Amino acid sequence: MTVQDIKASVLLGPKQIDTISREISDPIGSDIQVEVQATTLCGSDVHYYTHGANGDFKVREPLSLGHEAAGIVKIIGPNVNENLKIGDRVAFEVGTPCGNCKYCRIGRYNLCPKMLFRSSAKTFPHLQGTLQDRINISSHWCHKIPDNLQIEHAALAEPLSVAIHAANRAKIEAGSRVLILGAGAVGLFSAAVAKVYGATEVVIADIAQNRLDFALENGIANHSYLVNGKRGTTIEEKLEISKKIANDLIEKGDGGEYDYTFECTGVESCVQTGIFATAPGGKVMFVGMGNPIQHLHIGSAALREVDLLGVFRYANCYPTAIELMSKGKIPALDKMITHTIKGIENSSKAFEIAGKPFDENGNLVVKVVIVN
Amino acid sequence: MTVQDIKASVLLGPKQIDTISREISDPIGSDIQVEVQATTLCGSDVHYYTHGANGDFKVREPLSLGHEAAGIVKIIGPNVNENLKIGDRVAFEVGTPCGNCKYCRIGRYNLCPKMLFRSSAKTFPHLQGTLQDRINISSHWCHKIPDNLQIEHAALAEPLSVAIHAANRAKIEAGSRVLILGAGAVGLFSAAVAKVYGATEVVIADIAQNRLDFALENGIANHSYLVNGKRGTTIEEKLEISKKIANDLIEKGDGGEYDYTFECTGVESCVQTGIFATAPGGKVMFVGMGNPIQHLHIGSAALREVDLLGVFRYANCYPTAIELMSKGKIPALDKMITHTIKGIENSSKAFEIAGKPFDENGNLVVKVVIVN
Amino acid sequence: MTVQDIKASVLLGPKQIDTISREISDPIGSDIQVEVQATTLCGSDVHYYTHGANGDFKVREPLSLGHEAAGIVKIIGPNVNENLKIGDRVAFEVGTPCGNCKYCRIGRYNLCPKMLFRSSAKTFPHLQGTLQDRINISSHWCHKIPDNLQIEHAALAEPLSVAIHAANRAKIEAGSRVLILGAGAVGLFSAAVAKVYGATEVVIADIAQNRLDFALENGIANHSYLVNGKRGTTIEEKLEISKKIANDLIEKGDGGEYDYTFECTGVESCVQTGIFATAPGGKVMFVGMGNPIQHLHIGSAALREVDLLGVFRYANCYPTAIELMSKGKIPALDKMITHTIKGIENSSKAFEIAGKPFDENGNLVVKVVIVN
Amino acid sequence: MTVQDIKASVLLGPKQIDTISREISDPIGSDIQVEVQATTLCGSDVHYYTHGANGDFKVREPLSLGHEAAGIVKIIGPNVNENLKIGDRVAFEVGTPCGNCKYCRIGRYNLCPKMLFRSSAKTFPHLQGTLQDRINISSHWCHKIPDNLQIEHAALAEPLSVAIHAANRAKIEAGSRVLILGAGAVGLFSAAVAKVYGATEVVIADIAQNRLDFALENGIANHSYLVNGKRGTTIEEKLEISKKIANDLIEKGDGGEYDYTFECTGVESCVQTGIFATAPGGKVMFVGMGNPIQHLHIGSAALREVDLLGVFRYANCYPTAIELMSKGKIPALDKMITHTIKGIENSSKAFEIAGKPFDENGNLVVKVVIVN
Repeated sequence: MTVQDIKASVLLGPKQIDTISREISDPIGSDIQVEVQATTLCGSDVHYYTHGANGDFKVREPLSLGHEAAGIVKIIGPNVNENLKIGDRVAFEVGTPCGNCKYCRIGRYNLCPKMLFRSSAKTFPHLQGTLQDRINISSHWCHKIPDNLQIEHAALAEPLSVAIHAANRAKIEAGSRVLILGAGAVGLFSAAVAKVYGATEVVIADIAQNRLDFALENGIANHSYLVNGKRGTTIEEKLEISKKIANDLIEKGDGGEYDYTFECTGVESCVQTGIFATAPGGKVMFVGMGNPIQHLHIGSAALREVDLLGVFRYANCYPTAIELMSKGKIPALDKMITHTIKGIENSSKAFEIAGKPFDENGNLVVKVVIVN
Repeated sequence: MTVQDIKASVLLGPKQIDTISREISDPIGSDIQVEVQATTLCGSDVHYYTHGANGDFKVREPLSLGHEAAGIVKIIGPNVNENLKIGDRVAFEVGTPCGNCKYCRIGRYNLCPKMLFRSSAKTFPHLQGTLQDRINISSHWCHKIPDNLQIEHAALAEPLSVAIHAANRAKIEAGSRVLILGAGAVGLFSAAVAKVYGATEVVIADIAQNRLDFALENGIANHSYLVNGKRGTTIEEKLEISKKIANDLIEKGDGGEYDYTFECTGVESCVQTGIFATAPGGKVMFVGMGNPIQHLHIGSAALREVDLLGVFRYANCYPTAIELMSKGKIPALDKMITHTIKGIENSSKAFEIAGKPFDENGNLVVKVVIVN
Repeated sequence: MTVQDIKASVLLGPKQIDTISREISDPIGSDIQVEVQATTLCGSDVHYYTHGANGDFKVREPLSLGHEAAGIVKIIGPNVNENLKIGDRVAFEVGTPCGNCKYCRIGRYNLCPKMLFRSSAKTFPHLQGTLQDRINISSHWCHKIPDNLQIEHAALAEPLSVAIHAANRAKIEAGSRVLILGAGAVGLFSAAVAKVYGATEVVIADIAQNRLDFALENGIANHSYLVNGKRGTTIEEKLEISKKIANDLIEKGDGGEYDYTFECTGVESCVQTGIFATAPGGKVMFVGMGNPIQHLHIGSAALREVDLLGVFRYANCYPTAIELMSKGKIPALDKMITHTIKGIENSSKAFEIAGKPFDENGNLVVKVVIVN
Repeated sequence: MTVQDIKASVLLGPKQIDTISREISDPIGSDIQVEVQATTLCGSDVHYYTHGANGDFKVREPLSLGHEAAGIVKIIGPNVNENLKIGDRVAFEVGTPCGNCKYCRIGRYNLCPKMLFRSSAKTFPHLQGTLQDRINISSHWCHKIPDNLQIEHAALAEPLSVAIHAANRAKIEAGSRVLILGAGAVGLFSAAVAKVYGATEVVIADIAQNRLDFALENGIANHSYLVNGKRGTTIEEKLEISKKIANDLIEKGDGGEYDYTFECTGVESCVQTGIFATAPGGKVMFVGMGNPIQHLHIGSAALREVDLLGVFRYANCYPTAIELMSKGKIPALDKMITHTIKGIENSSKAFEIAGKPFDENGNLVVKVVIVN
């Protein structure tokens, strides 16, 4: 068995990134070795970078971040029987479910209790992410990509899969009305996917005008709404403000309440606005993660049978994501990556950019990619 | 057109019930005239009785309560083309949806915004309920009942329909594990229906031991759990208590978290317990109505894809309810009506009994029926 | 009540069309009176025209054909409470279901056993179709159309609704592969709708090259396949031919078997090809009506869990059809109407054109509209 | 690694059964070694026994039949991480899907194209079945059974899973009407499962009165219908006969057409009867396998939206089957095994009995079990 030295960008503590050398063995079993060519950054990566931790998970050893990635097959393990060969370009799911629990068996492997998800300090040793030259990964979770799909876009299969999973859980119907709360990357992808599923009226709301402009100018949404930051103090006041915004949003869309709301901020007041703005029998999808404890007028959902549905990662969405991108179905795909950083040794810079809504020149930041 | 004098039990204000005389004309169009023979009381009836109001809806003229009812066809309107004749025994839905909105058209008529639901002070004039000798009602919403179904049980088609609607929304699968929070009438019916749908493990929780005993002794649930009343003061304390109860409940059922939780109390702490006790990918059904504003660890639902689904009345459930009862599928149907009051002129007494969990002799109160 | 004289184009027998005068009363109840401005012709209209009958239903009195129509509101009945006013432009569903049977109640009103569908000799007196100046029709089934939708396109809401109903029944998923058998109007609409629902690979097959060219040139399908007419004589030979064509089609799409097949010909050999070409777990939709008795290798569907699903008209599809057309979602909508005939007095000519795949100049016939 | 000699009952050719000695190694990887204690026989086993082949799959080397089995864990492989220990009693699925294809991933592993299913001559070497003393099998497909479940009944988890899979595919609703065509083991299990799912009217039809009596006497069905064997010669005659039987069946059930028909014979005339007897919007499930090529009035399904759905083995049904049996939910489970043969060396006798509807004493044969 050969062992190679590779370069890895690792997090050591809050805002402490280093580039180290690491050994990688040849892939065993049904694993393959992939040269990582592109990693796009996610909010949880930025969170780790900023705090040296993600929630309760504190970095206790050098941790390579990155889980939205794509690359090129370099070595094929001895037992690989997928249709993969050296030189193939692949997007890969970095979460490995157990394959044998009831969740894996019924097609909801994202809920597998034994799921091992890379770029995480949850376990020790940590599960290393994709910000390294090469990675050994199960061939079962590698998805060959077509020639016409750029490798940076292949990395976007991950966040796009979240949006697809949300749309699948919502069972979006053609001709429906969709509200997107939050125009960050997740919100923009959710809006784009809603359009792919045939939604005809997509309204997007945010507190930043530039993001809304981006959505409108690129045909990702039909209408936009700028939310001001006021939220109230008492619960009554908060509800009143949420109700008012909801009413404004309903008017904005010019056709009544929304069939589906994709809540992509995780902010309590937005969740509440989403509930109020959704039609009886509609659905509010919890796509964004925020404060887990919320004070809500839950009755306005329950009594109108507005379903409140969580969205946790994705299952069986990569093939769809790749197919939709390669067939040109995702509006403005080309513009989603706003910033490209060359070399994992420059990942600090990438994290700095990704951590803010606008770069130093005042340009909008949607997705930042690190390419090798 | 003939007009008759009939007797009606009406609410005038808090705890003010009178028996008055009222005129009823012959049924027109596709209406029929039904002699009401049994009305079972519901929590909302008791609420009106106690407060002279239900939420914002205050009684402003004499209002006959009662919406869980059955009777015998007396007069058939000129345009009735349902298969009904004089002397037929019928259970009837007292809500009349518009029939032409999108909700009515897609089979969710319970969400019809123009729904007219009897025994309600929402509109003026009020929509009179079933606590009167006779009632004119649309033939379209009358369901003929088989000979072997007692008229008091036919009245139970209404609360049973709520439980069936909840089970339908939950899509209960055979062999599944079900948690019922609250062992009042709605909880007991929900448990019974879960069994009909093939649930093999039904655990019921309540703060009253007698109710739990009733459930167990009558084969309505497999296991029971007595909740003590402590709820904590800070949100952290509340969550801790809910978590502990959830863990106890999970242990109780002896097989892991629940696939479905039917929350039949409307109490915040119970909703939270339900979320914690439900398995990833499971469902919490909001069957009980309580404080609409709740402080919840919503993240523990969202991140585990535990769906939060409201249940508002019922649609297309009466035929199933009648079929299940007449075929002997509802466990302990005979025992659900614990108290029978003769004569609508005695309805005060019925409301007094229905308003408490136990009668003056310490016997459990599940459902109270007023028969003519 | 006013009665007016209107002009009606009627069928008297095979290929016998006349223009007669007819009386129309003011609309009663919740009906409205519509001036019909456009009627597109359907295969069943042509069938009536050619044979003086449709299956067992023989024309026994002058019958106005036409059921794909749109027009302008002229008179509003006394009990109309829909949001309609004189001058509104409407597309209307010409089938009136009972509204109260289990099918109507659960959202499948197309299966209502009491459905009254216009332009049909099934009942006597016949239910008159839309090829007349004006028509009284239930306001409940009139759908107001937006200003930007041409009246001829509004008439197409009917055949488009069939395709939408088929797609709804199939539950087409985004990124899926769809096979369309038959490139007539129904097949083309089915292909177009599949695209709206996010299908990324749509392959269409027909025996006429021009139709295939039309589909490809207008972006309605991604690939096409010309079927030659040979079908074999023995069942073994027939199956072999169908199998071969299925294999060719699978290769054509360049990505494996199809997730969904929309069979739009009704021809036995095509149904068989569809079954063979569909992936395990996929669906074959019976959109086209043909010989009802078929000799099929049903085992190749059953053992691979390929669902065989019928499509009968539509339910709850008009709003979606109108929304999709007015929002520009239907590819090549503008080109679907290939022939326009002015005046119902010229409907013979329209029927003659609609009855053939190509007109006298060799141009393709997709939809023929008669405008007033 | 230890190797042991075990005894195996094998098929050599038509009706040629021998008991041979065979070597078995210790289980590797995540396999376990199970002592087979009970194998119930299936129609396909009998087919192999009678013809030395099953369809195109001819026995080319000694083949142990049997795939409905249960036993006791004897040796645990080195990498087993399921919750299994020596002495545990298990029912096991004998089909091993690949785990990584799209079918495995979405929860339909029964459709996995790489499925390896034991007791089959499809591949060479053959995949040996359960009629041997011991078997090495993947721990992932072993289901631990509760103490109260008899080992012979645990073997029945397999055919019961077929019925559960059919019921799941049909999405049987509580209170519905179900028709079962064929009262053999599969039909009886399908009827029993329909009851578990809340069907209130189950009517069963067969050509043998004793089978019908068995179903009625054991509460498996509510009504029965004896079909005489006449089937007609021309297609018109055949359809007429099927139509007449369907009408009789509809009358039998005394409540209209059926919501679901489980066709458990595979006979063309029965499939046709099933289509005619099923209500618009209902479903015909192809549970029985028969002549794959059938001449059907497919239009009577398509135009009434009667779905035709195949049932191929099962996916995710064993846990439900075990739960339902151990909780006493399957009516007459005790009586389903009508014949018990001791010792795999006597399997010839078991096959002889299983091959006929009645034994030499004229007693009904439902399931035959071979126990060790």
